[in-house]
Amino acid sequence: MKVQEVIDKVLLDACGGKKLEKTCDVLASGDPEMQVTGIVTTFMATVDVIKEAIAIGANMIITHEPTYFTGLDELEWLQQDPVYLAKRKLIEEHRIAIWRFHDHMHLAHTDRIYDGFIKEMGWENELIDKSSPWAYEIEKTTLRELAELFKRKIAMDVVRIVGNPDMPCSRIGVLVGGGSLGLGREQMPMELMNDKNLDVMVCGEITEWTLCAYVNDAAMLGMNKAMLIIGHERSEEWGMKHMAGWLRPLVGDIAVAFVDAREPFRYL
Amino acid sequence: MKVQEVIDKVLLDACGGKKLEKTCDVLASGDPEMQVTGIVTTFMATVDVIKEAIAIGANMIITHEPTYFTGLDELEWLQQDPVYLAKRKLIEEHRIAIWRFHDHMHLAHTDRIYDGFIKEMGWENELIDKSSPWAYEIEKTTLRELAELFKRKIAMDVVRIVGNPDMPCSRIGVLVGGGSLGLGREQMPMELMNDKNLDVMVCGEITEWTLCAYVNDAAMLGMNKAMLIIGHERSEEWGMKHMAGWLRPLVGDIAVAFVDAREPFRYL
Repeated sequence: MKVQEVIDKVLLDACGGKKLEKTCDVLASGDPEMQVTGIVTTFMATVDVIKEAIAIGANMIITHEPTYFTGLDELEWLQQDPVYLAKRKLIEEHRIAIWRFHDHMHLAHTDRIYDGFIKEMGWENELIDKSSPWAYEIEKTTLRELAELFKRKIAMDVVRIVGNPDMPCSRIGVLVGGGSLGLGREQMPMELMNDKNLDVMVCGEITEWTLCAYVNDAAMLGMNKAMLIIGHERSEEWGMKHMAGWLRPLVGDIAVAFVDAREPFRYL
Repeated sequence: MKVQEVIDKVLLDACGGKKLEKTCDVLASGDPEMQVTGIVTTFMATVDVIKEAIAIGANMIITHEPTYFTGLDELEWLQQDPVYLAKRKLIEEHRIAIWRFHDHMHLAHTDRIYDGFIKEMGWENELIDKSSPWAYEIEKTTLRELAELFKRKIAMDVVRIVGNPDMPCSRIGVLVGGGSLGLGREQMPMELMNDKNLDVMVCGEITEWTLCAYVNDAAMLGMNKAMLIIGHERSEEWGMKHMAGWLRPLVGDIAVAFVDAREPFRYL
């Protein structure tokens, strides 16, 4: 099977073949006509993920996020950059195709990044509204216990919170990846929190002057509001993990493996 | 002295009276004609900062960041919001004027947010180029020791890093606040790192797909690159702390106090 055939099968399965005109879902390296020897799915095609793909004999990586450090994988500014040149050399020497599956993954009838997150958390029956993956009602717990649950379920040593760790909570909002930035409408995460009467917002990326400031003030006012920050990679990796499961039947005998890009941070 | 007189004196001192036409530096509450009883400078007029101002009898807060949770302190979406209504009630009952001093503070001949940061770190003689506050050369250390230095100097329990903690470093970049996001030009922090041959970038706000991904790949490629994340508030608070010092002589016998807005996060 060729790279382009894999892409077409994924898009057909996820979006019924619907293709966005403007999209960041492009082939960052490799050729549509290459024969695929094995596929790796991952949150990000980091250098370590690429090395792991090479080690297991896979020559196609399906990545959710960019390969070259900007939202649109722009290359012009990178032509003399030593990090880019060394990463590109590794990719080209081993003839690795890297395809980004981002916009169409979120566009799928149920957003397949959230599908993976929900599976990983075991929260299929906790959705407040089956048609939207942003609000959950769970058994009453505390913010501290919720933090421990996330650390266990999605493998984190440390999480960040805003608010009182002993606060009770049961109505939980989730905005994965960059969704929690409210790009284009900064107030969106706060409106969601208020509309759905959520106790805690679990976030991917954040900025300190928006939801973070709102929750901080709410907590200082004695309201039952908090924020739990797990980051972009930890919140979206699970969509790519579970992709390996639905991709396998689409590509016949080509081996499909999930490779965890891992959280980029250490906490000192 | 009236609120407007304080504002005029600050703008004259910082920017020679130059005023930006488009700016977020607005009076978020209160009246230009109010008599000032005392001034608080702070990174953000959180509920706790407002309560502290009330406790010490100050009725003017000069804040670097927004009061109402979006970049431009938009109010339309907040009219039914319980957090906004309770915060506004506190502010109005105590007749507190809140003025934002952001754009003009960064516009000052030497950026006064960086001035405060440099003083707090004691890095006046470590600037690589006296005319720009983004690059420093310090005595050779390791990333881990640099992290400990920051924790001690700017009062953090935990910092985040990307890269190898035992990496040696001496050339340090600093992008405080939202500057590290490279808003409008995502690649800016990476270009700075490369142009100035920096080992470590110390950052305020970050996103995981830009500088973070770049440094992560660089470290995986064995290059001597790392990132140290201290956040928006911790990186900019010191500008507002040192503002109290230069503001006092401008306002005669009005008391001026710095109130630390404090890092919003706990690490669990």
